Amino acid sequence: MSDKRGLFITFEGIDGSGKSTQIRRLRDFLETNGHSVELIREPGGTAIGEKIRSLLLDKSNGEMSFETELLLYEAARAQIVNEKIVPSIRAGKVVVCDRFFDSTTAYQGYARGLDLSEINRLNRWATGGLEPDITFLMDLPVTEAMKRMVGRSGGSDRLEVEGSDFMEKVREGYLAILTRNPRMILLDATDSADTIFQKVQRIVWEVMNK
Amino acid sequence: MSDKRGLFITFEGIDGSGKSTQIRRLRDFLETNGHSVELIREPGGTAIGEKIRSLLLDKSNGEMSFETELLLYEAARAQIVNEKIVPSIRAGKVVVCDRFFDSTTAYQGYARGLDLSEINRLNRWATGGLEPDITFLMDLPVTEAMKRMVGRSGGSDRLEVEGSDFMEKVREGYLAILTRNPRMILLDATDSADTIFQKVQRIVWEVMNK
Repeated sequence: MSDKRGLFITFEGIDGSGKSTQIRRLRDFLETNGHSVELIREPGGTAIGEKIRSLLLDKSNGEMSFETELLLYEAARAQIVNEKIVPSIRAGKVVVCDRFFDSTTAYQGYARGLDLSEINRLNRWATGGLEPDITFLMDLPVTEAMKRMVGRSGGSDRLEVEGSDFMEKVREGYLAILTRNPRMILLDATDSADTIFQKVQRIVWEVMNK
Repeated sequence: MSDKRGLFITFEGIDGSGKSTQIRRLRDFLETNGHSVELIREPGGTAIGEKIRSLLLDKSNGEMSFETELLLYEAARAQIVNEKIVPSIRAGKVVVCDRFFDSTTAYQGYARGLDLSEINRLNRWATGGLEPDITFLMDLPVTEAMKRMVGRSGGSDRLEVEGSDFMEKVREGYLAILTRNPRMILLDATDSADTIFQKVQRIVWEVMNK
């Protein structure tokens, strides 16, 4: 994207790792500094994406094949990239995504065991080759994430019922992705929200002023 | 599939080419001869597939990206292969599909212009490598198909509004697939339904008794 002027930032990590808090603080910080920010949450965020999201989270679809699940995530992603992310970046906005294709690699690839090279190809194809400028990985031990999730309302959806073995594989998957991708920044999610945000702020600032 | 005992037959061709008539006659013929037949129509046929189908045909989703459309077709296909086609073939049934992955190659690849090698890979991946034993291509000039469609009820859905240039490319796409795939049998859809069915019947019979 030669005409790119904005910035594309993604947050990754298992549920309970504190992504939402950091995303909110980053938005406030950027807006205070005069930037226009677009927050995006996969797989929703578009009319089509919301319909796909409800399909994915509907427990009555429990018999969904792993391939179907992956393809539905990619379909929602292709839509959000075309309809929202690329136009926003071109308009000079900072796009902040709660999960992007690394989630697919970690959950469907490393945890479910679908072929990684196929997932990488699909990720590239569905996004037209678009990559985040920065990806923050909120790393947290699964036991700690589980403890934090107990207090949350809303209960378990189709994905949250996978159990701790599955989540361990997701965490390991994320760490494997980290070692292969310089765009990915490791954040220790056991640190305080303040400590984590200081690092987020510093790194975003560096990339913006490079 | 080493334990395969049934047969997998698909029908392809542009709308108006007469697929439904031939499929109905083939089912009656096979059932009369003691075979168990499973008719399948993509992208529906499963609970998940029906929801994806309504998403694809909904005109209020007119802004759907081409990639999203393709991925939704593949998602429905992965589900129907896992949930219906493979179990039926293993149970010794004859599975007859109204459209399968050749439709994706013809419509999204040749007509829409999406990358063909990527579509071939996706087709293979979503179906776990399953290929039809026989594919009947009902070939018809687009002008003739248009004439036949005028009389039909139901009106135009999201795909039927593409126009004749698009349909010409679909037809050419099908013929290109034909030249590369010995499993595909060309049927002249301008022939009478009786003449066409005699050929269908003979070829299915030959493959069954091979």
